[in-house]
Amino acid sequence: MEEGSRQFTEAKTNDMGGLADEEERDVEINSQTQPLLKRNRTLSSNPLAMVGAKVSYIESLDYEINENDLFKHDWRSRSKVQVLQYILLKWTLAFLVGLLTGIIATLINLAIENITGYKFLAVVHYIEKKRFLMGFIFFTGANFLLTMVATVLCVCFAPTAAGPGIPEIKAYLNGVDTPNMFGATTLVVKVCGFQIERYHFTFITSNSHELQFAQKIIGSIGAVSAGLDLGKEGPLVHIGSCIASLLGQGGPDNYRVKWCWLRYFNNDRDRRDLITCGASSGVCAAFRAPVGGVLFALEEVATWWRSALLWRTFFSTAVVVVVLRAFVEYCKSGNCGLFGQGGLILFDVSDVTVKYHVVDILPVAVIGVIGGLLGSLYNHLLHKVLRVYNLINEKGKLHKILLSLSVSLFTSACLYGLPFLASCRPCDSSFPESPCPTTGRVGNFKQFNCPNGYYNDLATILFTTNDDAVRNVFSTNTPTEFHIFSLIIFFALYCILGLFTFGIAVPSGLFLPIILMGSAYGRMLGIAMGSYTNIDQGLYAVLGAASLMAGSMRMTVSLCVIFLELTNNLLLLPITMLVLLIAKTVGDCINPSIYEIILDLKGLPFLDAHPEPWMRNITVGDLADVKPPAVNLRGVETVGRIVDVLQNTTHNGFPVIDEEVVPPIGLATGATELHGLVLRAHLILVLKKKWFLQERRRTEDWEVREKFTWVELAERWWNIEEVAVTKDEMEMYVDLHPLTNTTPYTVVESMSVAKAMVLFRQVGLRHMLIVPKYQAAGVSPVVGILTRQDLRAHNILSVFPHLAKPNGSEKGH
Amino acid sequence: MEEGSRQFTEAKTNDMGGLADEEERDVEINSQTQPLLKRNRTLSSNPLAMVGAKVSYIESLDYEINENDLFKHDWRSRSKVQVLQYILLKWTLAFLVGLLTGIIATLINLAIENITGYKFLAVVHYIEKKRFLMGFIFFTGANFLLTMVATVLCVCFAPTAAGPGIPEIKAYLNGVDTPNMFGATTLVVKVCGFQIERYHFTFITSNSHELQFAQKIIGSIGAVSAGLDLGKEGPLVHIGSCIASLLGQGGPDNYRVKWCWLRYFNNDRDRRDLITCGASSGVCAAFRAPVGGVLFALEEVATWWRSALLWRTFFSTAVVVVVLRAFVEYCKSGNCGLFGQGGLILFDVSDVTVKYHVVDILPVAVIGVIGGLLGSLYNHLLHKVLRVYNLINEKGKLHKILLSLSVSLFTSACLYGLPFLASCRPCDSSFPESPCPTTGRVGNFKQFNCPNGYYNDLATILFTTNDDAVRNVFSTNTPTEFHIFSLIIFFALYCILGLFTFGIAVPSGLFLPIILMGSAYGRMLGIAMGSYTNIDQGLYAVLGAASLMAGSMRMTVSLCVIFLELTNNLLLLPITMLVLLIAKTVGDCINPSIYEIILDLKGLPFLDAHPEPWMRNITVGDLADVKPPAVNLRGVETVGRIVDVLQNTTHNGFPVIDEEVVPPIGLATGATELHGLVLRAHLILVLKKKWFLQERRRTEDWEVREKFTWVELAERWWNIEEVAVTKDEMEMYVDLHPLTNTTPYTVVESMSVAKAMVLFRQVGLRHMLIVPKYQAAGVSPVVGILTRQDLRAHNILSVFPHLAKPNGSEKGH
Repeated sequence: MEEGSRQFTEAKTNDMGGLADEEERDVEINSQTQPLLKRNRTLSSNPLAMVGAKVSYIESLDYEINENDLFKHDWRSRSKVQVLQYILLKWTLAFLVGLLTGIIATLINLAIENITGYKFLAVVHYIEKKRFLMGFIFFTGANFLLTMVATVLCVCFAPTAAGPGIPEIKAYLNGVDTPNMFGATTLVVKVCGFQIERYHFTFITSNSHELQFAQKIIGSIGAVSAGLDLGKEGPLVHIGSCIASLLGQGGPDNYRVKWCWLRYFNNDRDRRDLITCGASSGVCAAFRAPVGGVLFALEEVATWWRSALLWRTFFSTAVVVVVLRAFVEYCKSGNCGLFGQGGLILFDVSDVTVKYHVVDILPVAVIGVIGGLLGSLYNHLLHKVLRVYNLINEKGKLHKILLSLSVSLFTSACLYGLPFLASCRPCDSSFPESPCPTTGRVGNFKQFNCPNGYYNDLATILFTTNDDAVRNVFSTNTPTEFHIFSLIIFFALYCILGLFTFGIAVPSGLFLPIILMGSAYGRMLGIAMGSYTNIDQGLYAVLGAASLMAGSMRMTVSLCVIFLELTNNLLLLPITMLVLLIAKTVGDCINPSIYEIILDLKGLPFLDAHPEPWMRNITVGDLADVKPPAVNLRGVETVGRIVDVLQNTTHNGFPVIDEEVVPPIGLATGATELHGLVLRAHLILVLKKKWFLQERRRTEDWEVREKFTWVELAERWWNIEEVAVTKDEMEMYVDLHPLTNTTPYTVVESMSVAKAMVLFRQVGLRHMLIVPKYQAAGVSPVVGILTRQDLRAHNILSVFPHLAKPNGSEKGH
Repeated sequence: MEEGSRQFTEAKTNDMGGLADEEERDVEINSQTQPLLKRNRTLSSNPLAMVGAKVSYIESLDYEINENDLFKHDWRSRSKVQVLQYILLKWTLAFLVGLLTGIIATLINLAIENITGYKFLAVVHYIEKKRFLMGFIFFTGANFLLTMVATVLCVCFAPTAAGPGIPEIKAYLNGVDTPNMFGATTLVVKVCGFQIERYHFTFITSNSHELQFAQKIIGSIGAVSAGLDLGKEGPLVHIGSCIASLLGQGGPDNYRVKWCWLRYFNNDRDRRDLITCGASSGVCAAFRAPVGGVLFALEEVATWWRSALLWRTFFSTAVVVVVLRAFVEYCKSGNCGLFGQGGLILFDVSDVTVKYHVVDILPVAVIGVIGGLLGSLYNHLLHKVLRVYNLINEKGKLHKILLSLSVSLFTSACLYGLPFLASCRPCDSSFPESPCPTTGRVGNFKQFNCPNGYYNDLATILFTTNDDAVRNVFSTNTPTEFHIFSLIIFFALYCILGLFTFGIAVPSGLFLPIILMGSAYGRMLGIAMGSYTNIDQGLYAVLGAASLMAGSMRMTVSLCVIFLELTNNLLLLPITMLVLLIAKTVGDCINPSIYEIILDLKGLPFLDAHPEPWMRNITVGDLADVKPPAVNLRGVETVGRIVDVLQNTTHNGFPVIDEEVVPPIGLATGATELHGLVLRAHLILVLKKKWFLQERRRTEDWEVREKFTWVELAERWWNIEEVAVTKDEMEMYVDLHPLTNTTPYTVVESMSVAKAMVLFRQVGLRHMLIVPKYQAAGVSPVVGILTRQDLRAHNILSVFPHLAKPNGSEKGH
């Protein structure tokens, strides 16, 4: 399908810290060979990409089809059967992604529900005997241990597994070659040592990191079971993407299945599609929301989207939901311990009929506005907290572990201790549906420390799992259940926890903390409205949760569908839509979404959908002028020159130009011809295979097909350690024509940066050639090359600061 | 925002028929002026676009931003307030689209329900008195009259209002400038006379055609009330788009609001976005499915999609659903006659709990397979029928009217007569929820001709409105209601009607006929399964309807959500997904979707998302070689040359090339420079304004800004009647530089057609310049220009037939 021309070249270093990697990457050389590929760090030769960027050498993925001679030949000779195989493979992989995500998500849920269930049963046992201190010690101790497991695993073995992972997936699908996502073992291990010191970096997966994948699962189980204020939703999305990524490569690196069909999958575009499937499967598994999962991937995660992909994603999520349903049916009868007694819909509020009148529009609008304000305030504060946490985490592993453990202690103490502040409330016999009081691990009216016939409303929402807490706050037809004072305590506590839990070194999701916070103020508003409203308090809580999600994450359609699938109340849909629209609008006026903030914190070069307005006032020619000229190669080039170019530049693509070509009729002699773009990976492959010519000549088709296969070219030839060239060989020639992508996308130098950026993003490019607007003898057919870094607003502004003066904004239209 | 550079030039003619328009378009000329712009029809000068295309001169819309000097100046000088105004305008228009669509949809529903309601009440009155013949005469007569109103209106006044309109909207959003969509009065009236003779053409709207819009509403009411086998869904989508289009222009042509804010809307891109909002509002109004409407627009209708648009569409549908809800609440108490007693959810099946086991997977898969097979068979047969109808319709207005009326008579006769074939069934007291038998206009157990205590099951589904028929077939917890014989008659009848009703000259939707057919065989399968299944028969009917929709229309996610919102049963979602996936897969193996078939029948040049595989084996240079060379203009050109070019070519864009430019340092003299692309519309504007120079010189910025405004350039200057140039003026000069789009998208001549097509479609181009790969003195900086027609597979194959030999297929991956 495509030449999968992504490379991991030496150029990819990370200038964020002291990664002193020169020594390791030197080549073991024989005495008679040239000291080849000893890298001079010539980063400064590329001022545009350097200045101001936090991570300068994170490269783009290559979604462009590399149409060179080998590809074209393979393309023409591909049989119908091979095409069918390829289609079948895509669907099989999408099926497997759904299947495995569903199974793993169920296992995670099963583990979490059993661990927390038995933990609560034990604590309740102490409470029933009024041995409150012992209960506290047991509760805190169990949470402490579970947090310890999660955080130690995370810190010591797979530091990159912390955090939610959604921003990284988003960046990957935008075409950012996030470091170590698929990098080789040595590099990963090296960089890991460095990254532990930084704010937690998360990557989809890496060849050598089944460990990370497994840790994400165990860590997520531990962290959620420990009662920390975080959800399994974000990690599940990450796990889904991990599964997709592993499958797309044929399994973990060490046990890689060298399945012949998979060779068709050896390109970034197919991997991108599969990872999109994985992300939506993850959302589907987290919320049991198949359509919501597809839309989440579409609205929030993916940059490119095609209707074929919509269909395939939909297939994956359908498989997930069938798997989930099968497990739930199977576990209903108690085959899985405490798991599976809930049913399929997580927070069902379908038992209330939604009747509303014109007067209800006002409180709904108020919820929306509050959601937008609080959401953007949360984004702002979380940003500050994460910066402080960065400083703490930089001090070492011990600090990271201590931070996690103290958050765990604080959480446990509050969850257990605060309910003692609430006064006991008598059971109301008008709520016949729920037993009152309850003493088990679940239940809407927890007895806790109260006498019989009374319940503790604060314990109902604090002394329980996060999921049950949400369920209880959402509880419908129970207007007098909660005292507003209890809800205020609940809200304040979860505001604090929501800010301080996210950044610790465990896998953590943002969805559930936000739902908890939002549901609290929603219900509070419902109580405050009293009899002036026709909407149930439980629905107020749902709307509050939705509004805070929209205010922080700034999604609309996908959130709407996720909430529909979470709550199973179709008649609530129109007001949910209004609340989401208002909250997002308010939030967008204040600051960017939480994912954008995290992307920015991590320094990932995400390309926005909209060019900045000032980008119309600068041309790509202006950008090319401040960069060093492009390093061109001739169609038939000497080995020495290729070695020199690979050694002394960090570029990943080189224009191939034929000079003094035999001109077509009507042209003066001495014409030059732009032949295309050759990739660094392919140059390294040529050196490695020593496909050298004695004289300067063009090769025949069969010569190249004899030496290289299409599959080889799709591999990522970055490990230059194995390359060695003798002095004699340096004088020989290489015919680059058959390996050159003859159809790179180009722009004329007078093209505005705004339009060039649209092209770059829409077609998913890695390199964009600039051709001259002049036509004359002696003009080079290539003026320069642009990459992702060159088109980032921040980098351009650092070189052309005068552009920044404001004259209106195009963004956000 | 953009220079709105679409033009309606003389080039746009329709070679489908004898549109003898030369006379009308000639210029009224003074005796001393040149006989300017008398058009030589030089269509044959463009072989590539001519050969084999049904409609050769349907042009592209121009979604590219025309970055000329005036635009850039306006862009820089635009204030923050203006930008805010622009954003506010977009949202206001989206709000108005939702509001008006909601109101008009409600009014249509109100009219239909009252007309059909009173019609049925009258007929039931006769039936109760056993005066069956009088009942038949009244029923048939009323339907006949209603059909007559719809079809006469449609045929005589607004022929373009027939059909569903969705394919045309789809083509418009793909960038096809469907003729007369916004054309001027004279042209429209002319072409209309021609189009009456053809298979019904439908257009979104046109400046002068409020008539068409109004007719669509009245025709839709008439046709649906007449009991024809068609729905109001398709026309509602069209009506939503019409509203959007009219609003985007500031209202109908004659009463156009010259609102200053609207000037920012004077471009194809903003209109495209607004029409997308309109289409999804229409779907939302039709199915009361806000999320389904957004997804329908996303999956089926739109070609380009941005997350900002997702949000705006969502806003529109939220407004629609709030309006609908308000009306339903208001009408519940009987304020609107017979309307509004149904509630918000059209086909509610939420009263059954979905329990299913492994054994149910087989029948579900069978439904999917049958749906795929029947759907593609339906597409195939409908294609044949439409071709036959074309022949009939070509014979004149009378034939069209007669065809409609005979379909109406046949339908009425069958709906009224066939129930007499069914035997009366005794009422079953185990279905306590529905009264039995019923004699009113609605009801699940119709007495019809039966004695008391008995009901006629065939009358229940035939002798009723289409909506009620669906409701009754979907009825849950009534396993013994229908005899399978009745369902077979129902199914057979609706198969016949579904094929022969769609093509008649009334506004008609495809959704409801397909739902009726599908629900019948779904329920039949449910009966056949008997006690082997745990799924309710009503749900089988729902699944059958969904499968046939997917088998014919090939949508997935949007159908899934629409069915969820129609039926309000979330637990049905997973099996709906499976059924849709299977049906779509089976259907895709057999033939294209119904919309693609209709698009093809109408000859609209829709650009597919995927290039054909053989497009990798041909370069854009090859295409340029078989076209006449591009007609270039110099930067400062003589008036005579411009007149000559406008007269003798049909092109809409001309490359502007500066010869012998003062070269940058280091270049040989005699360089040529590609300055950009100037549009025909702007050349006409220059002639009209007589912005001529006495000598050959470049103008200053202020000169052009004094003469032209940015808003003027965005107008469509096609009416060349007002242009007249004297002989003296022919010798003068025009400086084209300030009016030239300096940043057209370009490809190098070695680019493959596949990749060029991806660029063309992704960025939404109208013209794509080809630049040479050679760099030498004497080479023209432009090799050629490609347009939509040049990139269509059919046109390329007619010139390069050898490419068609099969070697695998890339499509549909």
